[in-house]
Amino acid sequence: MATQQSTSPQNSPVTVVGLGPMGLALAEALLKQGHPLTVWNRTPQKADNLVSRGGQRPATVAEAVSASPVTIVCLNDYDTLYKVLAPAADALRGRALVNLNSGTPREAHAAAAWAAERGIDYLDGAIMVPPPAVGNPESVFLYSGSQAIAEQHRVTLASMGDLRFLGADPSLAVLYNTALLGLMYSTMNGFLHATALVASAGVPAATFAELAVNWFMPTVVDSTLVEQAPNLDKANYPGEFGTMEMNLNALAHITRTCVEQGVDARQPALMKKLAESAIEQGYSGKNYFAVFEVFKKEAQSA
Amino acid sequence: MATQQSTSPQNSPVTVVGLGPMGLALAEALLKQGHPLTVWNRTPQKADNLVSRGGQRPATVAEAVSASPVTIVCLNDYDTLYKVLAPAADALRGRALVNLNSGTPREAHAAAAWAAERGIDYLDGAIMVPPPAVGNPESVFLYSGSQAIAEQHRVTLASMGDLRFLGADPSLAVLYNTALLGLMYSTMNGFLHATALVASAGVPAATFAELAVNWFMPTVVDSTLVEQAPNLDKANYPGEFGTMEMNLNALAHITRTCVEQGVDARQPALMKKLAESAIEQGYSGKNYFAVFEVFKKEAQSA
Repeated sequence: MATQQSTSPQNSPVTVVGLGPMGLALAEALLKQGHPLTVWNRTPQKADNLVSRGGQRPATVAEAVSASPVTIVCLNDYDTLYKVLAPAADALRGRALVNLNSGTPREAHAAAAWAAERGIDYLDGAIMVPPPAVGNPESVFLYSGSQAIAEQHRVTLASMGDLRFLGADPSLAVLYNTALLGLMYSTMNGFLHATALVASAGVPAATFAELAVNWFMPTVVDSTLVEQAPNLDKANYPGEFGTMEMNLNALAHITRTCVEQGVDARQPALMKKLAESAIEQGYSGKNYFAVFEVFKKEAQSA
Repeated sequence: MATQQSTSPQNSPVTVVGLGPMGLALAEALLKQGHPLTVWNRTPQKADNLVSRGGQRPATVAEAVSASPVTIVCLNDYDTLYKVLAPAADALRGRALVNLNSGTPREAHAAAAWAAERGIDYLDGAIMVPPPAVGNPESVFLYSGSQAIAEQHRVTLASMGDLRFLGADPSLAVLYNTALLGLMYSTMNGFLHATALVASAGVPAATFAELAVNWFMPTVVDSTLVEQAPNLDKANYPGEFGTMEMNLNALAHITRTCVEQGVDARQPALMKKLAESAIEQGYSGKNYFAVFEVFKKEAQSA
C-alpha cells in the first residue's frame, strides 16, 4: 500500500498500531479530526467500528505503517512493541514512529536506540489523561525525542491533545509522567490521610475538602512550591523561617496524633524518618526543602 | 485591677499571656487594631516594646486576666498552660479563655475540661500562618469549643486574622491543623520526590514546577479530590475508571523507575504497600480512593 498523500497537514494520514482502550481513543480522535486513518491490531475485530467509518485495515502491520508518514503505537509494553513492529521495521525506515507505551526511562532509551539502528525517526510520549479525555485540546500529551517529528507532525499530534515537547532525551516523557503520577499519589494520599484524621472526630470528607483543597492547597502549599523551586536548583535551603528540626517536631506531632486517634500512622512515620535522614545528612538547621537532597540519592537502607 | 470597659467591640480590651514569637505577633496585631492590651509573660522584659506603646503589664497573671473579658493564651504546651494559669483560675471564672497552643486532640479536650471545672468558658484555636502573617485579614485561624466566645469576641479574634469556627468539639481546631499539616508535608514530599526524579535526567526544579504545580496540581489532582470527597463519606469507590490493582501496578512502576534512576524509593514503596493493604482488605476492584478505608484504621503492623 502506498503512502496516502496529503497537501494540507490538517488531513495528513496517520497509522495507529494497538487498539486497546487507549489506542482506540487515539484512533477515534484522529478519525474525528479528518485524518485518513489506517489501523492495525493483533485482534483485527477491534477495528470493525473504525473501518465502518472509513478507517483502513490492511492485513499486515508492514502495510499499515506504509500507509502513513507517521505511525502512532500504543501497546501494553516495550516487549510487545518489538514483537509487533519487527515485521514492519523495513517499512518504517525513513518514517516517523511515535510510541505512546508507558515504560521506564531505560526502556524509552532502548526503544530510541532500536529505532535509530533501523533508520526510523523516534518520538516517545506519555498520555496524561484517561481514554475518554483523548481528543480534548486541553488533554496534555508529553513528548520527548525527535523534535523533527514533533514539529512536522504537530497538527496530527494536536488532534489527540495538547502537545508538550520536553526535549531531545527520549526518556523525558515517561520520566515526567512517572514523576507527576508520584506527585498525584502523594497528594491524594496526603488528602485521604488528612481526611481520615478529621473523620476520627466525625468530620465529613466533603466539609474538610472545602477547606483543604479549595483554600489550603492553592493558598498555602502550591504557591510555596513554585516560589521555592529555584532554590532547589541552587541547593539553597536557608533555615530562617523554620529549620528541619522544627519540621521534625511537627512530623513527630502528626504521627503522635494519628496514634492517639487510632488512624494509620505509617505515612507520617515515613515522613518523620525522611526528616531524620535529612538531619543525619547535615541539614538540621536548613529548611524543609532540603529533603530534596535526601530524595536525590538512593536510600542507605530499604 | 478591674476589667476595662468598652462600649464598642472594636476597642474591646484583651489580655495576651505568653510572649514567644507567636504571642508577640498576636499582641502586636491586637494593639495595632486599637484594642486596650494587657500582657503577661514569665520573662516580663519581652513586653517592653508593647508597654512603650500603651500595653499594660501587671505584676501577676491574675491581674492580667482580670483586665479583660477575654484572655488569649499562646504558650509552648499544655503543661505550661496549667502551670501559668493556675494562680489565675479564680480570676478567669466567668471570663473567656482562648487557647492557641498547639497540641493533640486529647490535650485540647483535657484543657476544655480543666476550664469547665473552673467555670471558665473555653475556645481552642490553631494558627495556620507564621508570626509575620498574623494580623493579615486573610490569615486563617481555626477555632473550636465555645461558640459563644467565637461570636461575642468575633471582632477581637478577627483583629488577628480570618476566623473559622469548626464546631463545639474543642479538639477540632488542633485536629484540623494537624491534618492540614500532614497534607502539606505529603504534598511537599510528593513535589520534592517528583522533582528529584526528573532531576536524575537533568531537569531543573523550576522547569518542572511550572508544569507540576501550575498545570498538573490544580487541573488534574485538586479538582478530583473535591469531586470525590462526597464519595468518601459514602464509602463509595466504583472501579469503573481504574481499579486498585491498576493503581498498584502504577505504584510498582513508579517504585521501579526510582530504583532505576538511583532516587530514594521509600516514599513510592510505602504507597505501594498501602495499596497492597487496600487489596488485602478487599478493595482490589475499587478505585484508588478506597485507600481512605486503610488510613481510617490503625495499621496491623508498624
